[in-house]
Amino acid sequence: MATAADTAAMRRAIALAARGLGFTSPNPVVGCVIADASGEITGIGYHQRAGGPHAEVHALAAAGASARGGTAYVTLEPCDHTGRTGPCTRALIEAGVDRVVYAVGDPTPQATGGADTLRAAGVRVESGLLAAEAAAGNAAWLTSVRLRRPHVRWKYAATLDGRIAARDRTSRWITSPEARADVHRLRAEADAVVVGSGTLAADDPHLAVRGVDGARQPLRVVLDTHAVIRPTARVLDGAAPTLIAVGERADTGSLPGVDTVRLPPGDGGGLSVQALLDELYARGVRAVLLEGGPTLAGAFVAAGAVDEIVGYLAPVLLGAGPAALGDAGISTIGEAFRLRTTETVRIGPDLRITAVPDTPDTPGTPETAVPVIAPKER
Amino acid sequence: MATAADTAAMRRAIALAARGLGFTSPNPVVGCVIADASGEITGIGYHQRAGGPHAEVHALAAAGASARGGTAYVTLEPCDHTGRTGPCTRALIEAGVDRVVYAVGDPTPQATGGADTLRAAGVRVESGLLAAEAAAGNAAWLTSVRLRRPHVRWKYAATLDGRIAARDRTSRWITSPEARADVHRLRAEADAVVVGSGTLAADDPHLAVRGVDGARQPLRVVLDTHAVIRPTARVLDGAAPTLIAVGERADTGSLPGVDTVRLPPGDGGGLSVQALLDELYARGVRAVLLEGGPTLAGAFVAAGAVDEIVGYLAPVLLGAGPAALGDAGISTIGEAFRLRTTETVRIGPDLRITAVPDTPDTPGTPETAVPVIAPKER
Repeated sequence: MATAADTAAMRRAIALAARGLGFTSPNPVVGCVIADASGEITGIGYHQRAGGPHAEVHALAAAGASARGGTAYVTLEPCDHTGRTGPCTRALIEAGVDRVVYAVGDPTPQATGGADTLRAAGVRVESGLLAAEAAAGNAAWLTSVRLRRPHVRWKYAATLDGRIAARDRTSRWITSPEARADVHRLRAEADAVVVGSGTLAADDPHLAVRGVDGARQPLRVVLDTHAVIRPTARVLDGAAPTLIAVGERADTGSLPGVDTVRLPPGDGGGLSVQALLDELYARGVRAVLLEGGPTLAGAFVAAGAVDEIVGYLAPVLLGAGPAALGDAGISTIGEAFRLRTTETVRIGPDLRITAVPDTPDTPGTPETAVPVIAPKER
Repeated sequence: MATAADTAAMRRAIALAARGLGFTSPNPVVGCVIADASGEITGIGYHQRAGGPHAEVHALAAAGASARGGTAYVTLEPCDHTGRTGPCTRALIEAGVDRVVYAVGDPTPQATGGADTLRAAGVRVESGLLAAEAAAGNAAWLTSVRLRRPHVRWKYAATLDGRIAARDRTSRWITSPEARADVHRLRAEADAVVVGSGTLAADDPHLAVRGVDGARQPLRVVLDTHAVIRPTARVLDGAAPTLIAVGERADTGSLPGVDTVRLPPGDGGGLSVQALLDELYARGVRAVLLEGGPTLAGAFVAAGAVDEIVGYLAPVLLGAGPAALGDAGISTIGEAFRLRTTETVRIGPDLRITAVPDTPDTPGTPETAVPVIAPKER
């Protein structure tokens, strides 16, 4: 039975895990909290970067001898294999931990089995505490394990009537500086940021992370079927790595020294979304932030390749101009892409709405954890 | 100086006032709380219907002798004129009230002066407590006094990408049963519900209030330039009064017994929004709920005649289909209709966003009163 102290410790471990977002791919984010035999927390840790020590190792090092007879709270089942680091099960057993509580089981064939190993060594093992919250925090990695493609988070910024620009295509600025700063946090959590050639032509975006302390720069990816990107495009500067995805017959002669990949055509006329995701997965990308305009977003939705949406809605009306989402192959209401809102927050004057596909198997924050604002008395 | 008890009493008076929404036009909604000399609340009341006793009269009757030496909290400056009822100033003075605290001054020439009359009789008078909240609760009436036209609240229901229907025009259902029930509450607060012929043709709406206990039915108004409404239209049933606004040369021969009004053309080709609002104002309408589709809503926005928006956003994406707002004469981002969000609440799985034009003189809930959801730790 989980006590209130158990829950508080696991919640802290989940918050710790989140610190690793953007740094751990292709590994998961993991947080660990060690309590000594009296229940006092004596060590915390999280997986800080791929190839570095696991969360348990950091937390055990901090706890030292106090781990003996204590409890380890871990957001993910401790690994049982020797990869770039030794198995965490052995570290926990050697430290003399009496009890291990983890939130989510490890679904990967090579790392699973940790719970069994711990039990065989006499450690008491419990699982499932705050599992939905922990899974939501690890959504990118869990999705990539399940689907063998990166998790895709589509970000858009629009007016209350769903426009991303006015009739004359002007759009600076619809959302607030606070919302635009928040997007840099999303980029920092991603391994790759993806746009299409329409956004490239309209905005000449830079796509690098600014204003997030210690952020790792994501791979900047441009889908540019006909290789029309100009050598002076901002996305080609040295601020972050860049990959240009082009069509099979594109002339890349104007792109010397640029990392390019040729992709087959997709169903909708552009490049194949699945082929792009395969390529990114092979490069170790697990978390994609899709910042593409309506055409590219529509292609991703049509391909069933949007796992989360983050919409910034500005309290603005335009009545004309391009919509946030273009053709996604949906022609009647029964085919609508239905989602489940997991979070709604004010970002400056704007609203940020996060939602996941409304399917039973989607990792996501459980409904009870959604912050709900009570209607005012009226 | 307002004490915490003063603030609590005024907040209760504001909540009481709101009970009158939908019943008091062309009068304001008003709430009143009486505390005796020791500060205990001994009487409450609100203005229940036009022509009925004012809030102060109800509250004083409940308080009886305990009002002597006590305090009256009123959301609006007590009236000083004899209309269908006697002046509230006299009632307060005769009851021996020692102190009157009101939130918002009465801006109407015939009713103003109440504070002066009270002071002249030796009553201590304070004003401005929770003024912004009280003004927001009385937005329809205050707007109609200021502009000499009804307050217009535009309601729409859309997907996260701003669509009100799919490509094939199917739309049942985008929003949830909870959101649709909530719309009936908005109707009950309104004196008139307005739609255009596009919505009439697409949805054959009924527009009456269902499922709201004790609701008064609003006037149902259809803008039907060419008088093409069918005699079998649901809006022509006997559930509520109905007004059909037609063009100056429309043939109304097919509408025997139907209340019609002829309106001049507006700038955008339909009927004049201003002429419609003048007509409704003359009929005592102070609160309009605009349920029109994108074309009519665009005409209202273009006419500067939207005072509040209430948007129901469903966690759904469509990628095609009509947008919530049609042409409003906005062609570039600098002309955008900018608003200020006053409330965001979950209604079932949907979000309801309320916003008012972002101008300094708009009555509206102050920013500090907006419920803000804190971002989750991540």
